[in-house]
Amino acid sequence: MADNPPIATTPEPPYYAVIFTSLRTAGDDGYGEMAQAMVALASQQPGFLGVESAREDVGITVSYWSDLDSIRDWKRQADHRLAQRLGRERWYQEYTVRIARVERAYAFAMDTEVPDGVLAGQE
Amino acid sequence: MADNPPIATTPEPPYYAVIFTSLRTAGDDGYGEMAQAMVALASQQPGFLGVESAREDVGITVSYWSDLDSIRDWKRQADHRLAQRLGRERWYQEYTVRIARVERAYAFAMDTEVPDGVLAGQE
Repeated sequence: MADNPPIATTPEPPYYAVIFTSLRTAGDDGYGEMAQAMVALASQQPGFLGVESAREDVGITVSYWSDLDSIRDWKRQADHRLAQRLGRERWYQEYTVRIARVERAYAFAMDTEVPDGVLAGQE
Repeated sequence: MADNPPIATTPEPPYYAVIFTSLRTAGDDGYGEMAQAMVALASQQPGFLGVESAREDVGITVSYWSDLDSIRDWKRQADHRLAQRLGRERWYQEYTVRIARVERAYAFAMDTEVPDGVLAGQE
């Protein structure tokens, strides 16, 4: 995740999100290294906008993309295909992938003055 | 998260996702209790389909809803409004909310036979 900020900085919608929610198998078995490599590789793909990731009981990785073609190309990328196969064979008990079109977004930062009505105006 | 499975069981798309990504302030300060209460309350709202949540460096909570009206009603729910205010005052250094329309979804489970081409056919 080296160069990706923990909360992705994304452009104005619309753009796309791939929500990947997973339950791991026990043990690392090469997973950590491959996960890092895949984030680095995704970050270089055309149309990549950012990624956010956390794991507790469940792992959630949300990657953001400019359009559906970029997501399709990333899904078909050769090294990523290998990782997907190993994922099904070794690393994931279970996962769900959801592809979604981001239609609205708003952000809050504690140290920023938020004038009255700015957040409310996004409703 | 008592009754919510770690990976949400959602109907066939289309439906909506609210992707909430956050950086916490230091200390709990009532956060854990409120977070649990809000998940319980959200789960009772009309249109609620499920929720997934994990926190590491960053927290990611994705809630799923049948339509935009349900999301708007949940945003305006009184106790949730209070939690949002306390979130901005105390608990979150920073957050981003993204509202997205889930257009496609597919799932994998290790113990299930996945015939050749089923996952590929989703591309």
